Amino acid sequence: MTAILNPRVLSALLLGILVGTLGIGLTLGPALQAGVAASANYQRPFPMPHQYWARSDEFYVFASGGQQGGMYVYGVPSMKYLSEIPIFAEDQAWGWTTEDEHVRKMLTNPWTGEVATRGDTHHPSASKTDAKYDGRWVFVNDKQFARVARIDLDIFRTGQILWAPNTTGGGHGFNVSPDTKLAVLNLEHEQYPDENIRRHLGLALDPVKGPYAAGINGIRIADDGTMSNGWQIWGPWQFDMARIGWGKSNGWIVTTSYNTERATDAVGMFKQDHDYLFFWNIASIEKALAEKKYVTSKQAPDVPVISWKDVEVYVTPIPLNPHGLDISPTGKYVLTSGKATTLIVAVDFEKVLQGIKEQKFTGEDFGVKVLDPDFVRASTMDLGMGATHIEFDDQGYFYVGFFVDSDIKKVPLGEPYTTKHGKTPWQVTDVLPAHFSVGHLAVPGGDTAQPYGKYVISMNKLAKDSFLPHGPLVAENHELYDIQGERALLVDQMALGPETHYSQILPVSLVAPKVQRAYTQAKAEPGAKPAVEYDYAKKEVRVTMTVVRSFFTPGAITVPQGWKVKYHLISQETALDMTHGFAIDGYNVSVSMDPGEVRDVEVVADKPGVYWFYCNWFCSELHMEMRGRMIVVPESEWPPAQETRLAP
Amino acid sequence: MTAILNPRVLSALLLGILVGTLGIGLTLGPALQAGVAASANYQRPFPMPHQYWARSDEFYVFASGGQQGGMYVYGVPSMKYLSEIPIFAEDQAWGWTTEDEHVRKMLTNPWTGEVATRGDTHHPSASKTDAKYDGRWVFVNDKQFARVARIDLDIFRTGQILWAPNTTGGGHGFNVSPDTKLAVLNLEHEQYPDENIRRHLGLALDPVKGPYAAGINGIRIADDGTMSNGWQIWGPWQFDMARIGWGKSNGWIVTTSYNTERATDAVGMFKQDHDYLFFWNIASIEKALAEKKYVTSKQAPDVPVISWKDVEVYVTPIPLNPHGLDISPTGKYVLTSGKATTLIVAVDFEKVLQGIKEQKFTGEDFGVKVLDPDFVRASTMDLGMGATHIEFDDQGYFYVGFFVDSDIKKVPLGEPYTTKHGKTPWQVTDVLPAHFSVGHLAVPGGDTAQPYGKYVISMNKLAKDSFLPHGPLVAENHELYDIQGERALLVDQMALGPETHYSQILPVSLVAPKVQRAYTQAKAEPGAKPAVEYDYAKKEVRVTMTVVRSFFTPGAITVPQGWKVKYHLISQETALDMTHGFAIDGYNVSVSMDPGEVRDVEVVADKPGVYWFYCNWFCSELHMEMRGRMIVVPESEWPPAQETRLAP
Repeated sequence: MTAILNPRVLSALLLGILVGTLGIGLTLGPALQAGVAASANYQRPFPMPHQYWARSDEFYVFASGGQQGGMYVYGVPSMKYLSEIPIFAEDQAWGWTTEDEHVRKMLTNPWTGEVATRGDTHHPSASKTDAKYDGRWVFVNDKQFARVARIDLDIFRTGQILWAPNTTGGGHGFNVSPDTKLAVLNLEHEQYPDENIRRHLGLALDPVKGPYAAGINGIRIADDGTMSNGWQIWGPWQFDMARIGWGKSNGWIVTTSYNTERATDAVGMFKQDHDYLFFWNIASIEKALAEKKYVTSKQAPDVPVISWKDVEVYVTPIPLNPHGLDISPTGKYVLTSGKATTLIVAVDFEKVLQGIKEQKFTGEDFGVKVLDPDFVRASTMDLGMGATHIEFDDQGYFYVGFFVDSDIKKVPLGEPYTTKHGKTPWQVTDVLPAHFSVGHLAVPGGDTAQPYGKYVISMNKLAKDSFLPHGPLVAENHELYDIQGERALLVDQMALGPETHYSQILPVSLVAPKVQRAYTQAKAEPGAKPAVEYDYAKKEVRVTMTVVRSFFTPGAITVPQGWKVKYHLISQETALDMTHGFAIDGYNVSVSMDPGEVRDVEVVADKPGVYWFYCNWFCSELHMEMRGRMIVVPESEWPPAQETRLAP
Repeated sequence: MTAILNPRVLSALLLGILVGTLGIGLTLGPALQAGVAASANYQRPFPMPHQYWARSDEFYVFASGGQQGGMYVYGVPSMKYLSEIPIFAEDQAWGWTTEDEHVRKMLTNPWTGEVATRGDTHHPSASKTDAKYDGRWVFVNDKQFARVARIDLDIFRTGQILWAPNTTGGGHGFNVSPDTKLAVLNLEHEQYPDENIRRHLGLALDPVKGPYAAGINGIRIADDGTMSNGWQIWGPWQFDMARIGWGKSNGWIVTTSYNTERATDAVGMFKQDHDYLFFWNIASIEKALAEKKYVTSKQAPDVPVISWKDVEVYVTPIPLNPHGLDISPTGKYVLTSGKATTLIVAVDFEKVLQGIKEQKFTGEDFGVKVLDPDFVRASTMDLGMGATHIEFDDQGYFYVGFFVDSDIKKVPLGEPYTTKHGKTPWQVTDVLPAHFSVGHLAVPGGDTAQPYGKYVISMNKLAKDSFLPHGPLVAENHELYDIQGERALLVDQMALGPETHYSQILPVSLVAPKVQRAYTQAKAEPGAKPAVEYDYAKKEVRVTMTVVRSFFTPGAITVPQGWKVKYHLISQETALDMTHGFAIDGYNVSVSMDPGEVRDVEVVADKPGVYWFYCNWFCSELHMEMRGRMIVVPESEWPPAQETRLAP
């Protein structure tokens, strides 16, 4: 049976005969006919017309970059790479460098002043209205420094970075609420928190031996997208993934923990045969805040820290080390899975609420009531090895990826979806082989109340021999499947840089109309003129420089050695794609200026000599001539008469 | 005529009718028939078989990344992105960060000790034997810091970075000789050099007002690929592009200068209606060295600096501001073009040699004989606005890109190629519209004695509206044309990150068989065992840590605050694609360890607390549990009893 469903087998059969042949579907079974019919969608005209992909793509994919520190953007179904969005790590390619004041401020820890130039982007979560994507922003977290960023989809750039307080890092699970007013960031890595917090929790913690504590950051999001640290809940456990419910699960946060053992090594974290799925009542959090049941830390005196004991929270056991955690479109089912078992669990949220009401508890742990799994589960399915994540389509199915099996299974949901698909729920109806080791997967809108369906993308963790050999470090493999028919069909494969942890797939129609062609920053300084100012007290030269094809003005400045030079760079370009660069030979300075963008670049002129600054974004036939000089004169030889003076 | 040749017009005609229709070529002209016949090459089976692209691609493209600081790698004809190679700039995505000692050493200026974390990759040049690619290495230069790197094609990683002495940066044109024994790196940005060099040149230079001097770096390459600074030639002019000749031009270096005016601003650089193409006799350089006609600088006492007056060099005028500079497959024609004219000049190298012999000079400039352009030119063609670069196919044609016209023109060469193409030479036979503003272009082998032909890739500087909108910063656009027929046909477009300056396109058969699946570094330390050593004199903790799925060993270390921690990380993996990461929460540490790779990471433990280090390359179902702790204890509270002790 598996062999018949297996696209790998179909591919081998079809490879030699499909190309250029029409009508072959008539001699094959219904599954193959569906495939052949669908194939016309993935052909393209030849010769290829300009803008073909731009006109035919239906979706944008915003894929987190993991240790790339930002996000990748590409189109579906073309699987054509479009761009990258730099966020948490310095990224010279995309002009995101800390010599620019704007970038440096975003990457600076507000409490310690340290600049974090590394990052590990994890879980993008798009803004929503009524639990449906609205195309305004994509938020995403950094695991390494426990930060959250807002990406503004009008410019495809980071608008804000918020740091979580009271933590050394390890902020993993992240999700934005269905009304985009709240986001949660889980602390996966256990912490030895601040003294105030320790006292408030009353847990026995040891900084060297453990156990430790951890918790959840609640981030408030204003109407204009501005984020602020709203609250934290701390308790005995770490948390992995997070979802904020809607519909049937409205008003609740769900999280998983894979280390309810509170161990400090991998062996210990697998000691128990189960961990927990958590249900947090949001109203109870607001109640604790209103009743001032919280403390604050020395570091963040404005962020309330609540004990897990002071909110309404329940758990239910999940087979060992759950990871995937996803909610069905109506909000009814919460699906999760143990990484080291073959079992997928569907929890019925209506049963959770009923169970709480009717006290269907089997005991408690650290004072938290344990909901009877037999009562709250809609199904426990034995589906395969190494389950990772789950997404939903518009036809009442869920798709679950398997790292070890290297495939995705398609499974019909229970009520109320059975009227849509007409199948026996909770039983596999299709298997999609992947190449290889599925991590996250994504369906357009597949984590909302409105899945668009049509496609599933498998973000495979290993690509092995999928592509031409390119050294011991192998690219990631994103695979696109068409899921419109009974049988999914592999449409395309795409190598991508490291290392996607999740994607949000938004309709082009929601995003494209809002995209800006230029920044408005230069417009805000209409009277700006080139200027050079020498500040002998601060040992600082301040340069206002206009940048327009093909001139930097002023084109030369003299500065005393050892002084700080502050460039206020104003791009006066207005045309789309007319980006300039500003690099200085021999100095670690390389920034980009998109049309209308203003940059503030600082450099300490610590080496004497003639240093050319130049445009490093090819801009015109006179691009190479678009350069000027920073002439650094030893301070001992500096005559103020050598100051650069501009014509008034 | 232009309209008939224009694929944009063809595309518009064909878009609606080609899809799914066979036999249409019969009713159209021969050019279209060729297109339809060729289209079968660019269809692909559906459902798509695993490894389709890996099996069908013929070429690797190694594209410089400009301000990305490294190189991009993709396949042809699939135009599928494969990977990136980090080189001159820190690049966390690909594990190229300065917390690793190996990377930091490569990025450290050998004379000043400064670490250059920015870079501007320009002109890749593959290793060659007998003027044909041999698939061993790709060399490439960094403009910003005047560096050259060697990429080892067995691991797709940087093996060496060489810094050019006596310069503040601006090393632009770069080329490797046909026998891979010599490379040249031109100084584009004018310099105020060291006192010794100034005295030797005897030119009137002013550090603030100019004019300045510049020159050429000669880099020697040993049989194992090791580069060393061999010599420099300095003179009054800066240089743009460089080529080392073969065949008819064997033994000569050719360079262009766009600023023979010796100006310091763009207006001044366009003052004269011509600049120069230079011919440097390599034997005369070796002769000057043998006769010790050189000086050395204080910075680099081991690198001979030769005056332009002491070598055999000639110039010939080229219309204003030449940029492109390329040599035909037999080495006979040197093609170049003025950026601000419509004229393309083909210089016949046999005429150059004859002109030197017969003294066909029109004068001299700074003592350099000026060859009569009427004598040495094979043709002066009026072809279009904004010419950039030139490449050659295997049929006797050259292809030249136009930035302003946004197209590529195909032109037959003169003798001995006329027997191949049978056309009237030097007249356009095809126009390939590009989208938009062509920079470099590349044909497989198109800069060697053995072009493979088949394709030309246009590396367009502007993409404008080619792709879905993605903000004011627009991706680059690489376009692939099939050039096997009379008329070129646009096969595909590909968005790519910033900003390719040139590509080398090598056959898969030359590269793929040599690619390694793992590093041999760990194998070189077969007895290595986990260890922690406390050095109270140096205030340093040295950790030997083994890394294998899913454990770091030791899994926890205690260190006194403020001490340096040196991690010697040994990946014991041997399987392809089993890469691990090593990131530390809250610290700027993020490196990758490919299978068998050894890394040496340094971090100053300047913050107290519990900091988890973790694998940030998803490696297994137990990936998230693959983590450990660096526990930083305030030095004042440090009891040596708290030292981490491992079981013997």
